[in-house]
Amino acid sequence: MQKTESVATKTSNQSVKFVYFFGGGKAEGDAKMKDLLGGKGANLAEMTHLGIPVPPGFTISTQACQLYYERSLQFPQGLKGEVESALHHLEGLMGKRLGDPQDPLLVSVRSGAAVSMPGMMDTVLNLGLNSQSVNGLATKTGNERFAWDSYRRFIQMFGDVVMEVEHHRFEEALTQIKEKKGVHFDHELDAVDLKELVSQYKRIVREIRGQDFPESPIDQLWLAISAVFGSWNNSRAIKYRQLNEIRGLFGTAVNIQSMVFGNMGNTSGTGVAFTRNPSTGENKLYGEFLMNAQGEDVVAGIRTPLPLAELKKVMSQVYDQFMDISKKLEQHYKDMQDIEFTIQEGKLYLLQTRSGKRTAHAAVRVAVEAFKEGLIDRKTAILRVNPTQLDQLLHPMIHSKTKYQVAAKGLPASPGAAVGQIVFSALKAEEWDEQGKKVILVRSETSPEDIGGMAVAQGILTARGGMTSHAAVVARGMGKCCVAGCQDLAVDESGESCRIGKKVLKEGDEITLNGSTGEVILGAVPLVSPEFSGEFGELMKWADEIRRLKIRTNADTPNDCKVARRFGAEGIGLCRTEHMFFEGDRIDPVREMILAEDRVGREKALAKLLPIQKGDFIGIFEEMEGLPVTIRLLDPPLHEFIPHTDEEIRNLSKKINVSAEKLKAKSESLKEFNPMLGHRGCRLGISFPEIYKMQTQAIFEAACEVSKKGVRVIPEVMIPLVGDVNELKVLRTDLEEVARDVMEKAHAKIEYSFGTMIEIPRAALTADAIAEVAQFFSFGTNDLTQMTFGFSRDDAGVFLKDYLEKGILQDDPFQVLDRSGVGAMMKIAIEKGRSTNPKIKLGICGEHGGNPPSIEFCHMLGMDYVSCSPYRVPIARLAAAHAQLKNG
Amino acid sequence: MQKTESVATKTSNQSVKFVYFFGGGKAEGDAKMKDLLGGKGANLAEMTHLGIPVPPGFTISTQACQLYYERSLQFPQGLKGEVESALHHLEGLMGKRLGDPQDPLLVSVRSGAAVSMPGMMDTVLNLGLNSQSVNGLATKTGNERFAWDSYRRFIQMFGDVVMEVEHHRFEEALTQIKEKKGVHFDHELDAVDLKELVSQYKRIVREIRGQDFPESPIDQLWLAISAVFGSWNNSRAIKYRQLNEIRGLFGTAVNIQSMVFGNMGNTSGTGVAFTRNPSTGENKLYGEFLMNAQGEDVVAGIRTPLPLAELKKVMSQVYDQFMDISKKLEQHYKDMQDIEFTIQEGKLYLLQTRSGKRTAHAAVRVAVEAFKEGLIDRKTAILRVNPTQLDQLLHPMIHSKTKYQVAAKGLPASPGAAVGQIVFSALKAEEWDEQGKKVILVRSETSPEDIGGMAVAQGILTARGGMTSHAAVVARGMGKCCVAGCQDLAVDESGESCRIGKKVLKEGDEITLNGSTGEVILGAVPLVSPEFSGEFGELMKWADEIRRLKIRTNADTPNDCKVARRFGAEGIGLCRTEHMFFEGDRIDPVREMILAEDRVGREKALAKLLPIQKGDFIGIFEEMEGLPVTIRLLDPPLHEFIPHTDEEIRNLSKKINVSAEKLKAKSESLKEFNPMLGHRGCRLGISFPEIYKMQTQAIFEAACEVSKKGVRVIPEVMIPLVGDVNELKVLRTDLEEVARDVMEKAHAKIEYSFGTMIEIPRAALTADAIAEVAQFFSFGTNDLTQMTFGFSRDDAGVFLKDYLEKGILQDDPFQVLDRSGVGAMMKIAIEKGRSTNPKIKLGICGEHGGNPPSIEFCHMLGMDYVSCSPYRVPIARLAAAHAQLKNG
Repeated sequence: MQKTESVATKTSNQSVKFVYFFGGGKAEGDAKMKDLLGGKGANLAEMTHLGIPVPPGFTISTQACQLYYERSLQFPQGLKGEVESALHHLEGLMGKRLGDPQDPLLVSVRSGAAVSMPGMMDTVLNLGLNSQSVNGLATKTGNERFAWDSYRRFIQMFGDVVMEVEHHRFEEALTQIKEKKGVHFDHELDAVDLKELVSQYKRIVREIRGQDFPESPIDQLWLAISAVFGSWNNSRAIKYRQLNEIRGLFGTAVNIQSMVFGNMGNTSGTGVAFTRNPSTGENKLYGEFLMNAQGEDVVAGIRTPLPLAELKKVMSQVYDQFMDISKKLEQHYKDMQDIEFTIQEGKLYLLQTRSGKRTAHAAVRVAVEAFKEGLIDRKTAILRVNPTQLDQLLHPMIHSKTKYQVAAKGLPASPGAAVGQIVFSALKAEEWDEQGKKVILVRSETSPEDIGGMAVAQGILTARGGMTSHAAVVARGMGKCCVAGCQDLAVDESGESCRIGKKVLKEGDEITLNGSTGEVILGAVPLVSPEFSGEFGELMKWADEIRRLKIRTNADTPNDCKVARRFGAEGIGLCRTEHMFFEGDRIDPVREMILAEDRVGREKALAKLLPIQKGDFIGIFEEMEGLPVTIRLLDPPLHEFIPHTDEEIRNLSKKINVSAEKLKAKSESLKEFNPMLGHRGCRLGISFPEIYKMQTQAIFEAACEVSKKGVRVIPEVMIPLVGDVNELKVLRTDLEEVARDVMEKAHAKIEYSFGTMIEIPRAALTADAIAEVAQFFSFGTNDLTQMTFGFSRDDAGVFLKDYLEKGILQDDPFQVLDRSGVGAMMKIAIEKGRSTNPKIKLGICGEHGGNPPSIEFCHMLGMDYVSCSPYRVPIARLAAAHAQLKNG
Repeated sequence: MQKTESVATKTSNQSVKFVYFFGGGKAEGDAKMKDLLGGKGANLAEMTHLGIPVPPGFTISTQACQLYYERSLQFPQGLKGEVESALHHLEGLMGKRLGDPQDPLLVSVRSGAAVSMPGMMDTVLNLGLNSQSVNGLATKTGNERFAWDSYRRFIQMFGDVVMEVEHHRFEEALTQIKEKKGVHFDHELDAVDLKELVSQYKRIVREIRGQDFPESPIDQLWLAISAVFGSWNNSRAIKYRQLNEIRGLFGTAVNIQSMVFGNMGNTSGTGVAFTRNPSTGENKLYGEFLMNAQGEDVVAGIRTPLPLAELKKVMSQVYDQFMDISKKLEQHYKDMQDIEFTIQEGKLYLLQTRSGKRTAHAAVRVAVEAFKEGLIDRKTAILRVNPTQLDQLLHPMIHSKTKYQVAAKGLPASPGAAVGQIVFSALKAEEWDEQGKKVILVRSETSPEDIGGMAVAQGILTARGGMTSHAAVVARGMGKCCVAGCQDLAVDESGESCRIGKKVLKEGDEITLNGSTGEVILGAVPLVSPEFSGEFGELMKWADEIRRLKIRTNADTPNDCKVARRFGAEGIGLCRTEHMFFEGDRIDPVREMILAEDRVGREKALAKLLPIQKGDFIGIFEEMEGLPVTIRLLDPPLHEFIPHTDEEIRNLSKKINVSAEKLKAKSESLKEFNPMLGHRGCRLGISFPEIYKMQTQAIFEAACEVSKKGVRVIPEVMIPLVGDVNELKVLRTDLEEVARDVMEKAHAKIEYSFGTMIEIPRAALTADAIAEVAQFFSFGTNDLTQMTFGFSRDDAGVFLKDYLEKGILQDDPFQVLDRSGVGAMMKIAIEKGRSTNPKIKLGICGEHGGNPPSIEFCHMLGMDYVSCSPYRVPIARLAAAHAQLKNG
């Protein structure tokens, strides 16, 4: 269901090239070929061109992966030959042969998509070892232990990834042998132990898979290529792409590269580095390394690595060389780089470079500073910051002046603060989140299987792993607070408890994390919103200069208004009035109105609500001085205000002295089969004109009062759920009369307008007629999505899950605006609306108003503004600037 | 909310002419000017041109009425002058002056819209009388009783219609005076009595209105004109226009005509006649008259009139003259005429001619015979029969061989038969109808207020009134069975009972009416469908030759198929399969499937359903030999198959041996907030592929089996509720594989196709993509209307009523397809669908498929077929011919 064109349809002849070589100072690819070679492959080629030491190898293209899927998991024609010839070339260059019993060439087989998906897909290292070549490796390196350790690592990794033997089966055998030997660490096992472990591993494979572990290195290679292709569509990779809105890719590339070993002794090592601090953005090399270790050891977070500065003490020449290379790479790519390296017996190799993932905080600082350093222009700087990511800057933090007791300290792996109840499994996190609980995921270490639980948690706390551990990298990507490698934490995952220092915590206990400092605090600490100044303020200013779309907010209270203005909102796009009907004692006159037998009774109850609503509007108008305020008249069906259970009815009955029977009868009579499509919105306004009249009176009385204080007030009265121009005509005529009466009595003149939501398909289709009576349209894309798709948002969860998994839909249309359906409807409405009313103001107030791709679409449609929740206003400001920069 | 252009916008200058004179052999208008002069005014002018004796007068145009409404009930500028000058002209012609105390001109003031709305709007007779001129009239006519009777009639009518004094107040005074005098009939009162009655009437007016009855004839005239204009928008007129889908008119005209009197003694009289029998269509003059009576006496049904043939005995010369005129009028208008006449002292005057309302039976016969007589061409003949009206021919009748006991006999006022429970008020009829009861409305006589109750009743029975009484005319127009003037019936309306012969019946008792014979039968007599032959068959053949649209039927059973084929269906447009899931024991495996834990369990249950579904399809395929059969796969949400009340759950629990808790939990888990927009249609097919696979297997196994008998089978598999092409792609791929497997196994080749419903807005908007995968589109306009409007059909009743009453919507969109919204959506779908698949077959299977204006719209969209319920197939055939004739 990918939307990219197939290779087969693109090139009907057989001249498609699948394999791209790099090594010996030359490469067939380059950094621009990410789509075809994946990020890793393209950058390995680029680094080769730049003369940077990269172990030679070759990349199988993403198109080969796509064809592999199109041909029902068969390798495309021609691939075999190309791989074999690249392998021969590699063997020539390295002077070794794959499977050579004397001096075997060993290779790594790694995935690499056009967009980085860290840890989501599969990797096999040390491929090429078998029962013969392991001896050759031992002889050639003079290191028998190394040879057998490499072999057992290979079997373990290949067995897990390719042969699908559960990881823990190997771990158990490893633990047993360590216990038998009475040692604690893997490196305490000697060659003899490892030989025994290898035969045990082979037995486990035979037992579970019913076949021997493959001896033939070329078979190993093809099986590994299959497995990497296959991992493109494993469930966690699919989920990751969904979460990160990654789409339109062909598949994964496969990088086959000669092995270099960081575990060949004390002059070998491996590490990762960022050219700037990925957490704060500070322009200072930042990394970690482990001596005598393979790369996976650092990333997996099993051993806690050393800061990169330490390397200077260990191998100062290598350190200097690495500093030079990293500077060169940042200058070349003009962005902060995330680099993997290995040192084999004192020689430095670069294994990967890519644009480094960073916190929002770092993203903003790096972008602004890179502009100031002259590295990039302002436009590029703006585009460097992902608007969605800003979300993490907009979340609450612990106030600098708050006093609290720190129970433990870990690494400040991802900034921001979080409060929640602790859980010890990703599954539980998801369950509790569905129940509306706020959770903190506490794990010894996280793994890619945990991704779902991490996504819903408020924050993540781990006992093991460093700043580049899985937990840290993923949490930063998600903009989620994370404290990693907290040594005072011991997690008993099966026992559903943990120990922090001396204190034992159970599932459900509340803690607070400060991801900016690494602090863990028992209990809940109050959080505050951060200030927006410095680089952030600068970037926002740039964005505001560029964007064309105005950004408004959805706000129902003076406090919402205050927050939103601080975040840069330029008006209210949606002020819901039903909220004001629910609060505190107000519900009583509301219920009185609903229970009234006739208009007179309703008007009596509404008269009680009038001063309250008026007060609400006064607060909002004062807060929004000088900015437009769009007020939506009552929208939800009346039954939402009436209790439904017998007990609630009994209580209300006593309270308002109306018989329970009558209440029950009313509740029954208001029940609807499909309330979404029932008696609500302007349909209520038509049936009970007195409700909207009261609301309009409250709006204009408030406006007159505030305006007399010299505050500029711009109310925009919005009629919801219009499907036919006559609804709007009838209501606008009546309500404008109310408005004029109020203004006349107050001797005031208010700048006001009347408009409508466009949220019903028929409104979009007849927008030409409606625009003759409306001064603005505000697209209610929540309801418009429900009706355009025929999806009830409350019920669609059941099948939407299937739809996303099966790729029938690319996105949840309630999160990302569906351009081809709902978007087409909006386009029709805008064209028709402008045809009769060229000056009509156009906005959006559905939740899509805060979603960057949806904002881009609104920009493309030529709308005037988007409106979103207060906390998303800065995101929308930046997204609007992106939209302008990308689309003009 | 009328869609016609305003006069004001049409003619900006002041040269609009409002008043059109007729009389003295000349007329300013003619029959073609119906829109402007109303039917009555145009025909009075036309008759004047034809030299037919018509009392002179003038007509105020419908545009004046429209302006009257546009200017908030102010007469348009210029009207006053034109009316006064026409009045002078009339006075000159008649040699009398309005209000002349010696010899007053009296006029009638009558409504008359472009489309006949009998009895819906107001009329005032004898206008011009006051306390002085009544004496002049007495002197001049030498008939004091006549003068005072005219005066009291005038006060009564003017008081009711113009001054809104309740009718019964006058009736009570009249009854009192008759009682005092000890007489039974109005005509037994003498001049003295009537004088007293007049003063009582005046007192009543003063008492209720607080003002005197107007003395000034010119004031009387303007008040009457206002009242007639006002009656255009009284509630019964609005309701009548809705029921009869009359729209786009300016308003009513007002006809002011010099009075002639049928109540001036025994050489005076009044009557109505049809040039052919309006019940059977027989080419024979058909009418009734009353001597010494005013026109309203005949129509109101208060006295039972004599057949027109009797007039020959009474006044043979007048009779002959009338016969000549009526023949002339039919020849002139080329259609059966409904004529009103008055004889004043031996002189015949024609007061009205118009196209006569007729039963469907008569309409068909008149149309076919008029063609054969050479009066009209075939095209005109087809257009003469209103397709909607055919409905009454398609309804059940009492079989000619059924034996039954007749309890009473009335006039056969409107043919067909009806069975139902009796009610004595229109309100009750509407209430009971809403509860799903079939009712017969029983009244002494009906009045325009009863129209709502008549519309919902199965049939109407009245004690008083003739073949042209209100009940008879309205019932024939509605195609509803009616027995009128049943003298053995006595209705006690307040006591809610009636007596038929000696038997007393209470509300709710069941009776049967035979409107073709006038028979009333106690209890229910079984009804049968009529045969279609003779003129009806001929007309249908003509329609079939002309129409382009194919007519299919919605049928779920072999019996439906049989009926539909007899009615001329050319295939099945919608075979719902869920029906087959509910019947008898089938519900058990269906429930077993729903309760299954996994796919294996579901498949086990589905295996039990397979042979049953296959059997269903065999029956249908055999019946539909040679014609296409569109089968819709399962559509409703699963919860419809599971019981919901505790008792039902307990019963099912015992029956299928599953715990009540489990059943309840399942029932709860399947509950949805908005089931309309929930887990149904192809969404079920995606979640549980095995259901659609079973259904497809059943369809193709049945098709192979029937086809092997030499019967041609053309199944069309239809996927419901598609909103995205990927849904269809996934399902079609899977199901076509099932189809091919079945055909392969059976060594059979079936002509089949796969297609989809278009019933979700998004499907219409993305129809270009969908059409690449679909071989046909069938518009499910029920759901498409729900989603385009955002109206839940089950819930919309509450506000739709308000919408229709307030004129926000012209029609219930579930009955008449909404062209500007839903229709626009269909147009988009068709254009987009054809852009990628020019050969795609297009049909409609919503209920609109049987609604003539909707059928016309489908024709205009260039669709291939409409599908409707079996009983509406002939209506659709004729409507499709009309569509072709009107639009080419």
